[in-house]
Amino acid sequence: MADETTIILYLYKRLYQLGIRSIHGLPGDYNLVALDSLPKAGLSWVGNCNELNAGYAADGYARIKGISALITTFGVGELSALAAVAGSYSENVPVVHIVGVPSTIAQRQGALLHHTLGNGDFSVFANMSRNISKVLVNITDPTIAAREIDRALTACIVSARPVYIGLPTDMVERKIPRNGLDTPLNLSLHPNDPEVEADALEVITELIYSANNAVILVDACAIRHRVVDEVHELIDKTQLPAFVTPMSKGAVDETNPRFGGVYIGDVSRPDVKAAVESADLILSIGALKSDFNSGGFSYHTSTKRTIEFHSDHTKVGFATYPCIGMKSILRKLLDSLEFSKIRHSESAKSNPPHLANEEAEKSEGDEITHSWFWPHIGNWLQENDVVITETGTANFGILETRFPKGVTAISQVLWGSIGYSVGACQGAALAVKETDPSRRVILFVGDGSFQLTFNELSTMIRHGLKPIIVLINNDGYTIERMIHGPEESYNDIQSWKHTKVLETLGAKEGEYENYVVKTRQEVDDLFKRGNEFSKANVIQMVELFMPKMDAPRALKITGKMSEKLNARMEA
Amino acid sequence: MADETTIILYLYKRLYQLGIRSIHGLPGDYNLVALDSLPKAGLSWVGNCNELNAGYAADGYARIKGISALITTFGVGELSALAAVAGSYSENVPVVHIVGVPSTIAQRQGALLHHTLGNGDFSVFANMSRNISKVLVNITDPTIAAREIDRALTACIVSARPVYIGLPTDMVERKIPRNGLDTPLNLSLHPNDPEVEADALEVITELIYSANNAVILVDACAIRHRVVDEVHELIDKTQLPAFVTPMSKGAVDETNPRFGGVYIGDVSRPDVKAAVESADLILSIGALKSDFNSGGFSYHTSTKRTIEFHSDHTKVGFATYPCIGMKSILRKLLDSLEFSKIRHSESAKSNPPHLANEEAEKSEGDEITHSWFWPHIGNWLQENDVVITETGTANFGILETRFPKGVTAISQVLWGSIGYSVGACQGAALAVKETDPSRRVILFVGDGSFQLTFNELSTMIRHGLKPIIVLINNDGYTIERMIHGPEESYNDIQSWKHTKVLETLGAKEGEYENYVVKTRQEVDDLFKRGNEFSKANVIQMVELFMPKMDAPRALKITGKMSEKLNARMEA
Repeated sequence: MADETTIILYLYKRLYQLGIRSIHGLPGDYNLVALDSLPKAGLSWVGNCNELNAGYAADGYARIKGISALITTFGVGELSALAAVAGSYSENVPVVHIVGVPSTIAQRQGALLHHTLGNGDFSVFANMSRNISKVLVNITDPTIAAREIDRALTACIVSARPVYIGLPTDMVERKIPRNGLDTPLNLSLHPNDPEVEADALEVITELIYSANNAVILVDACAIRHRVVDEVHELIDKTQLPAFVTPMSKGAVDETNPRFGGVYIGDVSRPDVKAAVESADLILSIGALKSDFNSGGFSYHTSTKRTIEFHSDHTKVGFATYPCIGMKSILRKLLDSLEFSKIRHSESAKSNPPHLANEEAEKSEGDEITHSWFWPHIGNWLQENDVVITETGTANFGILETRFPKGVTAISQVLWGSIGYSVGACQGAALAVKETDPSRRVILFVGDGSFQLTFNELSTMIRHGLKPIIVLINNDGYTIERMIHGPEESYNDIQSWKHTKVLETLGAKEGEYENYVVKTRQEVDDLFKRGNEFSKANVIQMVELFMPKMDAPRALKITGKMSEKLNARMEA
Repeated sequence: MADETTIILYLYKRLYQLGIRSIHGLPGDYNLVALDSLPKAGLSWVGNCNELNAGYAADGYARIKGISALITTFGVGELSALAAVAGSYSENVPVVHIVGVPSTIAQRQGALLHHTLGNGDFSVFANMSRNISKVLVNITDPTIAAREIDRALTACIVSARPVYIGLPTDMVERKIPRNGLDTPLNLSLHPNDPEVEADALEVITELIYSANNAVILVDACAIRHRVVDEVHELIDKTQLPAFVTPMSKGAVDETNPRFGGVYIGDVSRPDVKAAVESADLILSIGALKSDFNSGGFSYHTSTKRTIEFHSDHTKVGFATYPCIGMKSILRKLLDSLEFSKIRHSESAKSNPPHLANEEAEKSEGDEITHSWFWPHIGNWLQENDVVITETGTANFGILETRFPKGVTAISQVLWGSIGYSVGACQGAALAVKETDPSRRVILFVGDGSFQLTFNELSTMIRHGLKPIIVLINNDGYTIERMIHGPEESYNDIQSWKHTKVLETLGAKEGEYENYVVKTRQEVDDLFKRGNEFSKANVIQMVELFMPKMDAPRALKITGKMSEKLNARMEA
């Protein structure tokens, strides 16, 4: 019948409505029939090299497009992706994990199928995903399949967390009514209680008016729960200085004169630390105070003088307003504040700390040190670049780079899985290709992390993606050396011929380029090639040599603090 | 004090006592201190490219040495290895998974550490391992640490399943008494109840004496639960014909005239099928009747006329003898049977089905087809080779190869995770290097599976391992094509330059060799090179081209059956 569709097409069309155009994952015999229907819904299949990479790629894609989907097969496939999905959960990234599972009949029979533990337990793998999924559904009844799919997808977007959809092979093509698709998903947030919100608003307004030297501190959940526009409006209208954290780097326009730098407690640059910690009121938006995001829990700020806006509650000093979400209350604040009543101290109004590192620029030597490199590339980056940094030196180094307007930064400060960035780069580059191919995608990854997931360059080549991959060759796991065992062999890696990688993975003559840079002069020469390098229409790999024991300033301090923290935790 | 040691050294020395010499895994900041102590216990660190590969490698190492250990870091590391550990659980392989976790103090505080979900829940990841670990311990109390370690290691060996040991950073170097190490672990099996065993023995003996045409059917758990010697003694003394299954290929000496071939229900060669299914008594040892191991559940054998010996119970016809394990009852059977009373039918006594495929040898054409290749390589294999086959065409093809004496076969017929074989090859090759470097290690892997885990070749190169890697280039996921979507693009892969792989991953001139073979003549020429190829002292990769839509006989039948089975399960 014309007003019928299949369960799989219902799901795919919902994904399409949410903006998804490509699905990441790998084929497996429990999902093959599901893959057949992709073209009918206007969706493309990525076909990654392995499921972990696919999960990382889905995460990267979602950070550009707002949501993504990943298809794996029962057991072997889904478990291989778990570390990536857990990362998306940890970092608040909405990924729909669709798992092709054995038929409901086989499950009822407890059949001894391949990809099982051989014990007839078909729920064991889904249960492993339970705590890393906002919603977990197993489609076993066509009469409620559409409702279950809608419930999962809504939760995925609203909570900014992964959801799990288990799809038995005999459910894939079952017929269900298609009319549900005519009504878009209701993605509105749960409304704040008007009375509670009004009360909180009154208290907050008074605190803002009475402050002499307030600052705005923007953190990860401002990005993940989509209040970046409200944040910029707040900065513009209040003219208060605004700071970011490692996890929210890029959330505030860094060319805005009110931008103050990256606050990381004791790991901050001294001027940034002074500016934030001398404030008499902190408007904290979307805080996520993890160890590496907070300088090892070294904030010297007063809870009493902090207003915390979160996705699902608001804190004013020591008082919590449950269920008062920031999206609504920030809007009301913007609509009701009399901005002329806001006081600015001289220090906050002018001279916000600058990221440019003139000292480093002038420093001696021709080695590419971290202190020279990261501030330096700020001049080469372009508006709207997507900059992906790997857990390791790059994640700390990028904190010293001032971004042009519109730069999107992608990294995993909380989850911190090495190898993430290469998969994420594939996903982000594909998302950019679908939305605004003029944006560049630039990956900074260390040689250690690269070895975990570099096969995903194959997928980039296959789909004609053209990121610039800057491979930092510093001879092993430098971040681990900074924390423990600087000279231990377990932090060493096998030395690869990086300039052979693209060719080996199937890039054709003329469709790729390799560069090797070992000195500052060579970095500058590369940047000066202009469009030949900076806007090249091919995938490019830059092997950039850095000293083995050098590290960005923030990592050096964090390494020492981490050692101390570990010692304290082990006392 | 001299009679003290640390918790980590206690654990490592136990692993050493069990025969482990190398530990697989990756460094991470929650396990770095633990890694420091490896040399003190005489253990080497492998340092894999990623945790999934490390898990596969540990599985391969354990299949040669009887046990292995894997060290990962909290969250990111351990979850990346889950699919491999689940595979070891499914396939009955003893792997000790040691996870470096945050300190007990950090855990009690619910600190917002990196590698967490950000919710203060430190048990979530261990819980995900619970159903794929025979024992799961979290070392939090030094006074019982040794006991807990011993309990986990004993269970690992006895159950032939993975165990999980969570080791908080503050426990690693805590002092405990070392005297426990003087007493070897008690690895004896739970004794069978003498009265029950005697009764079972009597019934079994009568059945054997009254049979005219009994056969022995050896399956996976005969290998995993270490009764291969008893099996060979049983064959030699009874002179009954013995058959294996896909999962137990290699368990029976295939040069023994009593060896009958591989029984896989309807997927068997007709002569094998007839021999097994016409038997009037089947002595089934270590059966594991999964779909791919049983020809899609197509055994035409009578339960009433089958005696099943299992690790933890015995079944005689329809009657179960709980807790009567095979190790003990097989020994008693061997000691008490009067072998002259056993009758042999003419068909069983002589002319056991042969694997040599003369038809194929004589078949037309020069293309390397599966029907030609797999029987053919039986002539090239040597005694005591370790042969690793990937889930896919190779796993089915190897069933057509008759092994020389002492060949060990490694594959994942039940878990069936593609990419497994490359990691397993690293582990197996290292185990062989430690025990008998004269054994060759030969990997057969398809180009599709290779893409998931091929970075582990880097680890092989780094450790000077010298397997022969036969890469079957058949242009994508042929096994999936056989099941569904022969021409669908989701079964295609990116085309790689395989002959560049070893060099790219750091193999040095003179330390590796590449071969490309596209015709039968080229295969034969390669085999004829003698020691230059067959006993070369370098890592070698053979890229072997096969037709995209060709498949081994067993896979063609299984593919069709799988389709039918799916249809039935979806009806």
